[in-house]
Amino acid sequence: MKACASAPGKTILTGEHFVVYGEPALVVAIDRRVTVKVTERRDETLRVASDLGIIGVFEGNSFKAEGCRTDSRSFLEPVRIAAEAVMDRVGIKRGLDVEVRSTIPVAVGLGSSSATSVATVASVGKILGADLSQGNIADLSLAAEKFVHINPSGVDPAISTYGGAILYKRGEGIKRLQSIPNLPLVIGNTGLSRNTGRLVQFVGERRERLPSVVDPLIGLAGTLTRKAVEALLEGDLEKFGELMDVNHGFLVSIGVSNEALDRLVYAAKRAGALGAKLTGAGGGGCIVALCTLETQAQVAEAIQGAGGTPIMAEKVETGVQVWTEN
Amino acid sequence: MKACASAPGKTILTGEHFVVYGEPALVVAIDRRVTVKVTERRDETLRVASDLGIIGVFEGNSFKAEGCRTDSRSFLEPVRIAAEAVMDRVGIKRGLDVEVRSTIPVAVGLGSSSATSVATVASVGKILGADLSQGNIADLSLAAEKFVHINPSGVDPAISTYGGAILYKRGEGIKRLQSIPNLPLVIGNTGLSRNTGRLVQFVGERRERLPSVVDPLIGLAGTLTRKAVEALLEGDLEKFGELMDVNHGFLVSIGVSNEALDRLVYAAKRAGALGAKLTGAGGGGCIVALCTLETQAQVAEAIQGAGGTPIMAEKVETGVQVWTEN
Repeated sequence: MKACASAPGKTILTGEHFVVYGEPALVVAIDRRVTVKVTERRDETLRVASDLGIIGVFEGNSFKAEGCRTDSRSFLEPVRIAAEAVMDRVGIKRGLDVEVRSTIPVAVGLGSSSATSVATVASVGKILGADLSQGNIADLSLAAEKFVHINPSGVDPAISTYGGAILYKRGEGIKRLQSIPNLPLVIGNTGLSRNTGRLVQFVGERRERLPSVVDPLIGLAGTLTRKAVEALLEGDLEKFGELMDVNHGFLVSIGVSNEALDRLVYAAKRAGALGAKLTGAGGGGCIVALCTLETQAQVAEAIQGAGGTPIMAEKVETGVQVWTEN
Repeated sequence: MKACASAPGKTILTGEHFVVYGEPALVVAIDRRVTVKVTERRDETLRVASDLGIIGVFEGNSFKAEGCRTDSRSFLEPVRIAAEAVMDRVGIKRGLDVEVRSTIPVAVGLGSSSATSVATVASVGKILGADLSQGNIADLSLAAEKFVHINPSGVDPAISTYGGAILYKRGEGIKRLQSIPNLPLVIGNTGLSRNTGRLVQFVGERRERLPSVVDPLIGLAGTLTRKAVEALLEGDLEKFGELMDVNHGFLVSIGVSNEALDRLVYAAKRAGALGAKLTGAGGGGCIVALCTLETQAQVAEAIQGAGGTPIMAEKVETGVQVWTEN
């Protein structure tokens, strides 16, 4: 038997960075998923094979890469951590073959690592016969997240587990939002790598240098996210888009945008997007543009024309899914 | 005898747009000037010749262009209004030859029209033997400004008259700032024309749509300008530059920047500018970058490389100057 699970990636619609200082962020699951399929092995090893061609075998504390990539272990380690977290929880140890397939670009802030953790936890739980709740899956996935991110908020495992839309506030945790309308999005990938930790640190330093300006801006970003949620619940996508535009300016103010991101933002806006902003840490990575079904294709084209890689996406309500195959 | 006067242009360092809603703006005179030279004619006409090749003769209510430009009259009309304002004030009517020379690019927000009005008022006052105070000159110049801008704040004639640095607040008027350090600037002209009225209107409409976000942002922009003035008075140009960067993000948030402006801003920052932002109405026109004497040349080069026209500038304390030539 093969135990399978899939989990969606995510994009942050408003509030990134400001969330570090206690303001809410609005996150939605997108229709890009990681699928993990697990079968039991006859030995005690854990073999992980990703469709990126990264393959390796964990045996106790040792790791052996199959293939020539030197970063295989750090790439596959979160899968091992997630799998072992489940085995520890359930109290069963098994050798496993884990096969990972993804339609989420990696390392651009779209929640690829969390979706991998969540789908691994769910599929490993299934093969071991454990009946894990969504809450269990999100909690166990957080362990693997801690390997990837120093201080993960927990919002990424949560959105990959539950799907839909989530309002996250540090200290208060997640609030699932219901009745959010369909959101046709285009994500634009700059292709530039980014250093989330360094950007978070830069914002912290700017805040220390200019507290009387940056602190009120942080508070205002919280107001913006609350207004954005109101607009969504009213189905007012035009207002929501305009608030995304304003939010992008806030991110420019704290110094985390750059020319490549802004170029994609302007291209998306010119092509008719209702709103466009960088999403995630900034300094590279992606923008997200809110479109209508009519403008989505032309916004994607404009992003391509401006040197980005467009990813058509929409919010999905389906979080982690588990099934078996023979 | 030839009566001569020159007056400087200006650039807004912080607070544009937000000034419309009662927050302060910080404006400095720059070392680009308009020079006006006036001689008496034997007839009753007013002949105005600009070094842009725009020449025309006013006689009563009629106007005759010399040359082929069809916009001569609207271009030269402010000179006539300024000259007539002085003649009305002094109670003397003369035919005049007015010669206008400028090193300020026109219609990009650098105060070319105000500098022209101020230098015209001062030189016409001189030829008529009137002893106009700086306050008189600024007031009389405002009349001509009303021809160019629908609702001029009076800050442009003031800065062209007094020079130096001015904090302007609607309803409270101008406050001249003393002891401001030298400010090596590079202005970057996008070469794109802009429509100030339309941009001001756009901001007003965004404010009406999103009052709970835009109103606090306006207030925060006022805080920013006050902090920027503090930084200048402390001689802390690094802090001042960082506040310019933050201010640029605010202008992005209210929707008045564009890709050409942002490109010049990023180019200036990459080349070592302490801060860079759009200046004036936005939507075209110019950026202003604060540099050190060491980085000024490389910032200018970077702006050129990014498709802009760089203008090296610095704050000047000298406002309107009047003299005679034989």
